Amino acid sequence: MAVYTDVAAEDLAEFLNGYDIGELLSYKGIAEGVENSNFLLHTSRGAYILTLYEKRVAVDDLPYFLSLMAHLAERGVHCPQPARNCNGAVYGELAGRPAAIIDFLEGVWPRRPNATHCAGVGEALARMHLAGRDFALFRKNPLSVGGWRPLFDQAAARADGVAPGLRDLIGRELDHLEARWPADLPTGVIHADLFPDNVFFLGDKLSGLIDFPFSCNDLLAYDVAICLNAWCFEPDHAFNVTKARALLSAYGRERQLSEAEQAALPLLARGSALRFLLTRLVDFLDVPPGALVKPKDPLEYVRKLRFHQNVESVRDYGLTQPGFAA
Amino acid sequence: MAVYTDVAAEDLAEFLNGYDIGELLSYKGIAEGVENSNFLLHTSRGAYILTLYEKRVAVDDLPYFLSLMAHLAERGVHCPQPARNCNGAVYGELAGRPAAIIDFLEGVWPRRPNATHCAGVGEALARMHLAGRDFALFRKNPLSVGGWRPLFDQAAARADGVAPGLRDLIGRELDHLEARWPADLPTGVIHADLFPDNVFFLGDKLSGLIDFPFSCNDLLAYDVAICLNAWCFEPDHAFNVTKARALLSAYGRERQLSEAEQAALPLLARGSALRFLLTRLVDFLDVPPGALVKPKDPLEYVRKLRFHQNVESVRDYGLTQPGFAA
Repeated sequence: MAVYTDVAAEDLAEFLNGYDIGELLSYKGIAEGVENSNFLLHTSRGAYILTLYEKRVAVDDLPYFLSLMAHLAERGVHCPQPARNCNGAVYGELAGRPAAIIDFLEGVWPRRPNATHCAGVGEALARMHLAGRDFALFRKNPLSVGGWRPLFDQAAARADGVAPGLRDLIGRELDHLEARWPADLPTGVIHADLFPDNVFFLGDKLSGLIDFPFSCNDLLAYDVAICLNAWCFEPDHAFNVTKARALLSAYGRERQLSEAEQAALPLLARGSALRFLLTRLVDFLDVPPGALVKPKDPLEYVRKLRFHQNVESVRDYGLTQPGFAA
Repeated sequence: MAVYTDVAAEDLAEFLNGYDIGELLSYKGIAEGVENSNFLLHTSRGAYILTLYEKRVAVDDLPYFLSLMAHLAERGVHCPQPARNCNGAVYGELAGRPAAIIDFLEGVWPRRPNATHCAGVGEALARMHLAGRDFALFRKNPLSVGGWRPLFDQAAARADGVAPGLRDLIGRELDHLEARWPADLPTGVIHADLFPDNVFFLGDKLSGLIDFPFSCNDLLAYDVAICLNAWCFEPDHAFNVTKARALLSAYGRERQLSEAEQAALPLLARGSALRFLLTRLVDFLDVPPGALVKPKDPLEYVRKLRFHQNVESVRDYGLTQPGFAA
């Protein structure tokens, strides 16, 4: 969480002249997002988020993320809608960086999600998957199974310094998943990062999904598996089957998982656990000594991976009957 | 600029139950303030700033800062007003820290202040000084002349490593100021940190003053001297006499500086330059190697100090006649 780029009020006011979103009243750098600079703007029309994309974001991918949000919002998914400037473009340049403005969504993210929150996420995820069906753009998931071995290669030599035996654990899991990763499940637009801090609620009611820079085209059920890992474990690492049941049932009421998707879910959950284990491990090993940024704990995902390695079927996630229709 | 403490939405909602400011809609950690954690809240009533006071702020001083803002706001000074909780208190405890809520002020701070901005600051500063006359609390300025030698003692041994000759320059200046610091000028409540990032404008019109944690009782003209240093030098370190004239004239239209204050202004400006030189130097030497935080440049204030050492009278600040009345 950081603001990397300061924006002069004078430059911002000029940038906003290219938009029809009212007069600038205030803007504050906000502590959200790991790789971009984000500002909360107040204008005479309302509240907006201004994002300046820093170096690790490929400008080529911006049209995908921003068009997707517009596409989803038009189809009733609660997510920020990008503002178009007077040329019709969804991003421009500010302070030497690509910059976009999106609606500010009210809501707070739950630090201690309960089963009601999990049901809300399952429902919203399924609706997002359905709304994405006719989205015209395509973006391959760089962090699906094909992207994991390069991450492992970066981290392997130092993995055992983080936890003894970690290199071997990851190597064997990677072999296992590469040999079995499904190729014939339904695909579509996935969020790919729907952690609690990306889901807003007002009370128990979900008010919106945010933060689409990992969105891409991939297996829809893989997105479900990511949510199982992100939402259904307790702080003590115990799997909460009540939350998983709530999430999966609510998803199934909107979009029923096929039998093949259900059968693959434990494997997809292992894959999702390995993906976050690997990116966290690489980030952990990248942090310079003495830095103020505390990286996320990669070992949290070792525990999640081990849990899913012992799952035999989708029933272990709390479902007692095939199919998730209510 | 940082958010040091995360606040759980659940805990914040409970904290807000003690206030009558509406339902929580959203909150974002904002990148403002060096020593505290600040959040911009939206509620069903409007926008607020929540501050969690971290370790370097003495809780004993909170009543002074917060009561002062209430006092000034009641007298028409545009500054944030603290919210009172249901017990009438202006602060409580959240996430184990003292926490206060104040109104959010719309406005942006000018990165490239012009003479109109400087006139706005002069006028607002004088009005603040007048409005503070009947403020009941007292707080000694820990960063006035008596506080500088302890800072010098901390930094002296390593000062020449920052710039050759710096130790000697500061030592001589400190001797000079300690021997001559005025004791009989008008005193009152001063802001003591009225840099551009603490003054908001909407267009060219000043919309408010913020950030009072350095406010205290001290020489009123010392506050004017701080503003001269903060507002009237160009990025290339040149003194802009047009801006100084605008600032001092506008101040004088609201509260005329006495002859003794005018005569002392060059000395007070030297003192103000030394004060920021010393605190920046200490901060600069405190930063651990490899830290991401970039400290402010102490040498900027060496240049300002040298400028004021060559000032002969208040006329060098752009005023051609005694008295600042229009």
